[in-house]
Amino acid sequence: MNSKIVECVPNFSEGRDLDKIEKIVDSFRGKNNIKLLNYEADKDYNRVVVTVIGEPNAVKDAVIKAVGVASELIDLNNHEGQHSRMGSTDVIPLIPIKNITTKECIALANEIGQEIAKNYNIPVFLYEEAANNLDRKNLAHIRKGQFEGMKTKIKEDNWKPDYGENKIHRTAGVTAVGVRKPLIAYNINLDTDDINIANKIAKCIRHSNGGFRYIKAGGIKIEEKGITQVTMNITDYTKTSIYRVFETVKMEARRYGVNVLGSEIVGLVPMEALIDSATYYLGLNDFSVEKILETNLIE
Amino acid sequence: MNSKIVECVPNFSEGRDLDKIEKIVDSFRGKNNIKLLNYEADKDYNRVVVTVIGEPNAVKDAVIKAVGVASELIDLNNHEGQHSRMGSTDVIPLIPIKNITTKECIALANEIGQEIAKNYNIPVFLYEEAANNLDRKNLAHIRKGQFEGMKTKIKEDNWKPDYGENKIHRTAGVTAVGVRKPLIAYNINLDTDDINIANKIAKCIRHSNGGFRYIKAGGIKIEEKGITQVTMNITDYTKTSIYRVFETVKMEARRYGVNVLGSEIVGLVPMEALIDSATYYLGLNDFSVEKILETNLIE
Repeated sequence: MNSKIVECVPNFSEGRDLDKIEKIVDSFRGKNNIKLLNYEADKDYNRVVVTVIGEPNAVKDAVIKAVGVASELIDLNNHEGQHSRMGSTDVIPLIPIKNITTKECIALANEIGQEIAKNYNIPVFLYEEAANNLDRKNLAHIRKGQFEGMKTKIKEDNWKPDYGENKIHRTAGVTAVGVRKPLIAYNINLDTDDINIANKIAKCIRHSNGGFRYIKAGGIKIEEKGITQVTMNITDYTKTSIYRVFETVKMEARRYGVNVLGSEIVGLVPMEALIDSATYYLGLNDFSVEKILETNLIE
Repeated sequence: MNSKIVECVPNFSEGRDLDKIEKIVDSFRGKNNIKLLNYEADKDYNRVVVTVIGEPNAVKDAVIKAVGVASELIDLNNHEGQHSRMGSTDVIPLIPIKNITTKECIALANEIGQEIAKNYNIPVFLYEEAANNLDRKNLAHIRKGQFEGMKTKIKEDNWKPDYGENKIHRTAGVTAVGVRKPLIAYNINLDTDDINIANKIAKCIRHSNGGFRYIKAGGIKIEEKGITQVTMNITDYTKTSIYRVFETVKMEARRYGVNVLGSEIVGLVPMEALIDSATYYLGLNDFSVEKILETNLIE
């Protein structure tokens, strides 16, 4: 079978009201050719991240439906949370998984954006691979000013939305739709409650401060455990390996006499990223994923 | 899709004549519902190991056909090689992979054994999970005496074959058909040409000498590289992990001042076995294969 498979990881601005969360997530349930993989609601962020994979048109239909549900249930005027946000459906990233090109995903992002604007009067910005200009590549750049600032920002000449009018939806704000590579959300736990150490290590490994090309990182404190974390996105695991980052963090942590307690992966991870680490640590010669039984089961 | 998938790794006693090898392997090519994953011919062993996966009946038909081809091309009376052998098709292991139980594989082994005896007059012994008595669990036990010794051995009361007459096929000998769990053929390279060191380390880790429960191991010399190997089968990787064996071999090698150069996997490896090692080395918390993207693509 050569069916096209796309991953979609929409973020909705509700992380506390379980009833509302379930109503939104229901849009992805019991449909043909789409599989709800997981959803993680964060109370502090006040945000839920849904992960689905499936056939492009099935994913498109479900996510458009979910945007409609979210726009009815979430009023951004009454929303507060630690994560920056600009819409009831904040962002819809699409990721090519199998038998589908980035170009096809960009076409899909455009179809989704157009429908959202048409059906719900929510303006849409296209970002990252789907962006129509350099200013919009970076989602953080689009989202700057958040819901509150978007009212005026969207009136500026260079912030006219890609779909819809240059006027935010009164309660649902605006939504970004984009296409990106699979990224790995990866956290490394430090045996210290000193956030300064986590921040210093994060600086060493992240691209913006001279670190690895495909790492975005920061330090955070996990209050209930009395530890800190170097939290990161690995935006291209084929070029910046998990084990390399992990060993580098261990190396830097020694400078402060701090132990690395372990690490964790949030959401999904491509098999190859972990196989790459196993291959490194076991010193495997001539290994390729073709030798993995399951690779031969995925048709 | 819930199609049943079985793996089959038949061993044929020809590792030198490429023309004959191709003719045997052709039995697994261009068929529906069966996939030839690889075949490795070894000149010293004078033996070829074929790995296929597929739907049980498709696998059955193809392997029976291959046994017929091998019986026409290989005369055990003129066969010599380092690996012990008792038939032109020496052994046919079946391994349950997906949506199929060990019990179903045992039924399949019986069907295959019956057909081989009926079609080609080759007596068949059932081994390991498919064995009808304890003496036949261990393939090495059945094969003891090899082709040459089997002429008389098969006449003994307790070595009556499970299918066919108690008389070897004049040129094709006898064949064993069995069911086993997936095993991992794993070798660890030592930076020494002293086979005694490799043997001593192999003894430390193998079950028969007090080592790990699911390790069968020995030492071998790789002449052309001037190194030695601890070569092993991990017969249940869910209980004896790859990383544990690797780290133990490193630990033992230090005793002799010998470095471990790396390791290699021969044939196929289940994804979980390597993920387990990545999880160990990265200290991953709360990780399960459900978090692996590809796990969700195998339907």
